[in-house]
Amino acid sequence: MKPTIRVPAIDRRVVLSSLAMLPLLSASLRSTSAVAQAQRDPLPSWNEGATKASILDFVTRVTTQNGPYFVPVEQRIATFDNDGTLWVEQPMYVQLAFALDRVKALTPMHPEWKTKQPFAAVLDGDLKALLASGEKGLVEIIAATHAGMTTAEFEKIVTDWLSTARDHRFKRLYTELVYQPMLELLAYLRASGFKTFIASGGGIEFMRPWTERIYGVPPEQVIGSSIKTRFEMKDGSPTLFRLPDINFIDDKAGKPIGINEHIGRRPIAAFGNSDGDLEMLQWTTLGASGARFGLIVHHTDAEREYAYDRQSHFGKLDVALDAAAVNKWTVADMKNDWKCIFAFE
Amino acid sequence: MKPTIRVPAIDRRVVLSSLAMLPLLSASLRSTSAVAQAQRDPLPSWNEGATKASILDFVTRVTTQNGPYFVPVEQRIATFDNDGTLWVEQPMYVQLAFALDRVKALTPMHPEWKTKQPFAAVLDGDLKALLASGEKGLVEIIAATHAGMTTAEFEKIVTDWLSTARDHRFKRLYTELVYQPMLELLAYLRASGFKTFIASGGGIEFMRPWTERIYGVPPEQVIGSSIKTRFEMKDGSPTLFRLPDINFIDDKAGKPIGINEHIGRRPIAAFGNSDGDLEMLQWTTLGASGARFGLIVHHTDAEREYAYDRQSHFGKLDVALDAAAVNKWTVADMKNDWKCIFAFE
Repeated sequence: MKPTIRVPAIDRRVVLSSLAMLPLLSASLRSTSAVAQAQRDPLPSWNEGATKASILDFVTRVTTQNGPYFVPVEQRIATFDNDGTLWVEQPMYVQLAFALDRVKALTPMHPEWKTKQPFAAVLDGDLKALLASGEKGLVEIIAATHAGMTTAEFEKIVTDWLSTARDHRFKRLYTELVYQPMLELLAYLRASGFKTFIASGGGIEFMRPWTERIYGVPPEQVIGSSIKTRFEMKDGSPTLFRLPDINFIDDKAGKPIGINEHIGRRPIAAFGNSDGDLEMLQWTTLGASGARFGLIVHHTDAEREYAYDRQSHFGKLDVALDAAAVNKWTVADMKNDWKCIFAFE
Repeated sequence: MKPTIRVPAIDRRVVLSSLAMLPLLSASLRSTSAVAQAQRDPLPSWNEGATKASILDFVTRVTTQNGPYFVPVEQRIATFDNDGTLWVEQPMYVQLAFALDRVKALTPMHPEWKTKQPFAAVLDGDLKALLASGEKGLVEIIAATHAGMTTAEFEKIVTDWLSTARDHRFKRLYTELVYQPMLELLAYLRASGFKTFIASGGGIEFMRPWTERIYGVPPEQVIGSSIKTRFEMKDGSPTLFRLPDINFIDDKAGKPIGINEHIGRRPIAAFGNSDGDLEMLQWTTLGASGARFGLIVHHTDAEREYAYDRQSHFGKLDVALDAAAVNKWTVADMKNDWKCIFAFE
């Protein structure tokens, strides 16, 4: 799977910078801008076709005043999975790459790791042995790398790592490996009065330091998996100390639970890419009145990104792909529906 | 403690209805309106004095562009306790009154409750015996009345109850027993670019059905205690079924934990009234740079509402009152600082 660099016809830099400005505009200006944007194509990186049409049709329905499908602004809630839906999740989740790098960085303080699994597997770069250690091994890695510091310290560790670590295939910062068509979709929904949330199986505190800058999604609109914390006053300053105990897994049936806990109402649109998003898509679209929208990003482009679904280690898409056909969820075929994958192409 | 009805000099109805309109206005209109409102007094139900001045001074500081204490809009986060801070918590928490009414309503299906504690105490109206059953008894009551149905069913039960149940002393709906000065404060902060959140020890799903209508706080900005839920597909429709297990207690050291989990950044202003709010006030105001604001509502008015603090069963204010003096938190003296308590006076 060799990467190829494509130079698309339109200038993505202009598109990106104008989208980046959107959150700065006031709500009323945004409404005006939505009209202007709709006229000049809010989704320039999406090819014309049934997929793009289904998105535009849904947004038009729920925003058409006095129309049969009109939804008041405060109920326009959209939830997005992160890994594989907004950014790359191959050859492994970015957060796993972070954890492995942290194991290496912390090894001088833990010489015993050199002969102790699953840490030895990490230090040997033996991903197979690591995966063989199963969930127990991964939880050990997470506990050793994600706990034992304050929330403020963890935020700095994540921010520092993301500012330098690079993906091996694309040689880019991970925060550059976000899908340009999905950035446009996030901005388009917000310009149409939606509140956009992330509902990810990934760690909530791993995402929050950068989601506002990269996606325009503020920390309070990020839902994810978490470990427990303990409140402590230290030298007169309050801290939250991160503990090596799982608090919540925001995946599969956990997604509607996390969404309900954080948002308190059902989304009217949801976007995912794997079986981990099945229940979120069900919770969003089924057994409810009015217009609802579900979309699955299908990774079909080995040349520009990756091609995987039913057999994949990360981001397995099997049951949810069958459910999409039954429930009339839109399936976005990355190869055919997306003009470009990344802004830097 | 006999209630007295006072007719204040200004027309509260006008104030209330204009405040109620605020959330409908766009962000840019709100900014304009903030200026106009500041000129015509954004807190008309607050008496002039040090308390009111401290609020106005804080808001002016953080909203003054290029000033030394300016805070960007996205960081203007304010958290409010609910019971005793935004509405009445005496002679018992409203949610406890709800639970006791639910026990009575459900007794025909549970004849064994007539002779079984703590249910018998409830049916006999014996609050002392109920409190003697301790936390274990209260958890049993909560499990019996708050679990065993879907989230949608529970929302309807709460909404129906609140539309008819009345407080014994004031003969009013509980949602009328909200503090007019605090409604003005919520609206004033929002008009000044703040996002207002509730962080309550009360049940998150008990508050969400009405906080948007009464306080202008949408469900996604409500943080509270919760029980566990289970996702289930039923006849093709997704449901969340409420289980009789505690998920999270959003009180004391739980408040900063809940705030971090939901918001992901520290508030710059917090409002409480009891020792249950101590850690939220610490988390908000201590060991942080820039302007921070903490306020405690002190119940000092037995004539118009209730007077209680260090010895109270509900809303005990002891350690946090001492901490207020040390940490320079504002203490609002209800009797002297508030022109009126309720909108209906």
